[in-house]
Amino acid sequence: MARRSPAAIVGVGATPYYFRGESYPQTIYELIGKAVFAGLAEAGLEIDDVDGLAFFAFGFDTGMVVEQLGARNVTFSHCVSGFGGGMAGVLDLAAMAIETGRAKTVVCIGATQQIGRRVGQALSNFAATPDNIFHRIAGLGGPGQALALSARRHMHRYGTRREAFGEVVLASRAAAANRETALRRKPLTLDDYLAAPMLADPLCRLDFCLETDGALAFVVTSAERAADLAQKPVYISAVAQVADPDWGRAFFWLNQTDAAFTTAGASAVARRLYQQAGLRPQDIDVALLYDHFSPLVVMQLEDYGFCAPGEGGPFVESGAIRLDGAIPVNPHGGHLSEAYVVGMTHIREAVEQLRGTAVNQVGSAATALVAGGPAPVPMTGAILSNQP
Amino acid sequence: MARRSPAAIVGVGATPYYFRGESYPQTIYELIGKAVFAGLAEAGLEIDDVDGLAFFAFGFDTGMVVEQLGARNVTFSHCVSGFGGGMAGVLDLAAMAIETGRAKTVVCIGATQQIGRRVGQALSNFAATPDNIFHRIAGLGGPGQALALSARRHMHRYGTRREAFGEVVLASRAAAANRETALRRKPLTLDDYLAAPMLADPLCRLDFCLETDGALAFVVTSAERAADLAQKPVYISAVAQVADPDWGRAFFWLNQTDAAFTTAGASAVARRLYQQAGLRPQDIDVALLYDHFSPLVVMQLEDYGFCAPGEGGPFVESGAIRLDGAIPVNPHGGHLSEAYVVGMTHIREAVEQLRGTAVNQVGSAATALVAGGPAPVPMTGAILSNQP
Repeated sequence: MARRSPAAIVGVGATPYYFRGESYPQTIYELIGKAVFAGLAEAGLEIDDVDGLAFFAFGFDTGMVVEQLGARNVTFSHCVSGFGGGMAGVLDLAAMAIETGRAKTVVCIGATQQIGRRVGQALSNFAATPDNIFHRIAGLGGPGQALALSARRHMHRYGTRREAFGEVVLASRAAAANRETALRRKPLTLDDYLAAPMLADPLCRLDFCLETDGALAFVVTSAERAADLAQKPVYISAVAQVADPDWGRAFFWLNQTDAAFTTAGASAVARRLYQQAGLRPQDIDVALLYDHFSPLVVMQLEDYGFCAPGEGGPFVESGAIRLDGAIPVNPHGGHLSEAYVVGMTHIREAVEQLRGTAVNQVGSAATALVAGGPAPVPMTGAILSNQP
Repeated sequence: MARRSPAAIVGVGATPYYFRGESYPQTIYELIGKAVFAGLAEAGLEIDDVDGLAFFAFGFDTGMVVEQLGARNVTFSHCVSGFGGGMAGVLDLAAMAIETGRAKTVVCIGATQQIGRRVGQALSNFAATPDNIFHRIAGLGGPGQALALSARRHMHRYGTRREAFGEVVLASRAAAANRETALRRKPLTLDDYLAAPMLADPLCRLDFCLETDGALAFVVTSAERAADLAQKPVYISAVAQVADPDWGRAFFWLNQTDAAFTTAGASAVARRLYQQAGLRPQDIDVALLYDHFSPLVVMQLEDYGFCAPGEGGPFVESGAIRLDGAIPVNPHGGHLSEAYVVGMTHIREAVEQLRGTAVNQVGSAATALVAGGPAPVPMTGAILSNQP
């Protein structure tokens, strides 16, 4: 059942995207400021209109952001809990603030600036915990090593070929070719893919996403108010956060349910999203899937019901995720080719698709899925739509 | 105007409190687990009943907490944005989840474990920002140095005496004397106070709060459901988060409005709280004020309207904050004598007072103020009550 009066995204702002560390000497606060003021300008709003903030905070201090923005009317300020695929949670914080009247204009903020350490290394810095103790000793020092095991098991169980992972990469690079925002735009062939150096078998270098500096901001307000603002509103039809029953007991940061080690752990998020939005997989016009590692796109296609479990490989290889395919995936180039600001760029692309202003526009897209991908709990996802 | 059906705190759990680092070799996740399961047991609930989490997260990974708790039904997981005085925000996250149906049973979690670095040093680790650059060069390396300036200005402007700060410390120590949970229970005299070594003039060692390891958890559910559970419900009558107009431009992490540098920056929070709860200062039976530094208690008494601006010193010296005074403050011993788990212990004491089970019970206390104190934005506060 769709919510009666969903909140709406009415402004999007972003910095340019930079390869890791190349945004220096700007601070992450400068990056965030640029994104926020761009988003407000697009919406026709001022910083004094902002009374809510929703953060997806990696490596920055939220209080410092509020100060440096000069956001002096803020009476709502919260963060999503969790890393990686948690980004859709910012939309739910904003929606809650608006539903309950705690704020009228919420800016959702996410940013990364990887100076000195990589996001993937952040886990290494935690106190000694069972997870760290077990996984690091086993050589699973980062997400690449861990997800390589999952990818291998998908291959073993279902006969999935490396060519399917390659097609995810090629499709993303093809989409990025005409996007000025994208950091990797050179087209690739399958031969290029198969010749790339292996980093964590079966994951080669091209299966790993970019590491990027950048900031994005989304301005959210009520559907009623959105109607009076400058941009075509994009409605938040559904957001889900789920901590799956078997995470933690299974494998690093995958949320495993059934089919151990061969899913992206997103099936429970998918069920909740479709239920909230009153939609089915076939109602989704464009899917922004969390592609920090290419095999996870194959698994998410299964988890979100675009194909049956185990059939992600052949489905992808059939061309289904291309712009003219059954379910266009990441027409912005995604994390593999455009930029990796921890999922926030996927929300931006969903908004542009639903406004009809995307560089690689998917027909008259009316609904977009934004998937948070496998991440430390909770997993998240959202369905956005161009109708309330 | 009070909310019609406020959420209620139905369980409180806490670890013992430890001097900084003395909780080792327990991990912070063990501490949190002990607090959460104690809180659930008190409420008569199980971990599988928990579908929401609200974190006040200092130095721990929230995803790891969810995993290690085995909280497998979680569909709501967010964090307060901000440090220090932000802790009341967890209650608002919980209340919002319950108001909007996003969760039925939310556990609010806060913990500190200061192994390797102090909370007060955390700011030093941020990227070079104007705040860090200006304040650190000026010798304001931590909150003690910064707040010393504010305390001195209060003395200069209003004639406030060190004896007032000393009375805050003595009152807290007197309250802690019979509390087994308190880390500093030895009674003090004013002579002891005046003889203590000066650390950041006019703040002596006894004006600084403790540094503590520990974890606390509060179980929150709807008022309707609370009525069927084991403990007498304590209702969340009001919670406010405020980013004051002048923060950041003024002084480190104080939220200055008027009377530059002589307030705790809490007057806007106070106004919002009283308005939400439909109460006035004289309706508050017990005040849990954020006493990381004793002068801030004097200032909060003014900001929250218990006395006029500038009169906090004589008000305190009159005995007003003692158990039998006009407004009993921190009958648990507060951060100065019991423990410093970044405000979470104040929420615990408020609950115990409103249940009528506090060690130092303030008559038949019906309403309690929990003040977040001056902190990186946003400031927070809450009013709890024993009636819906």
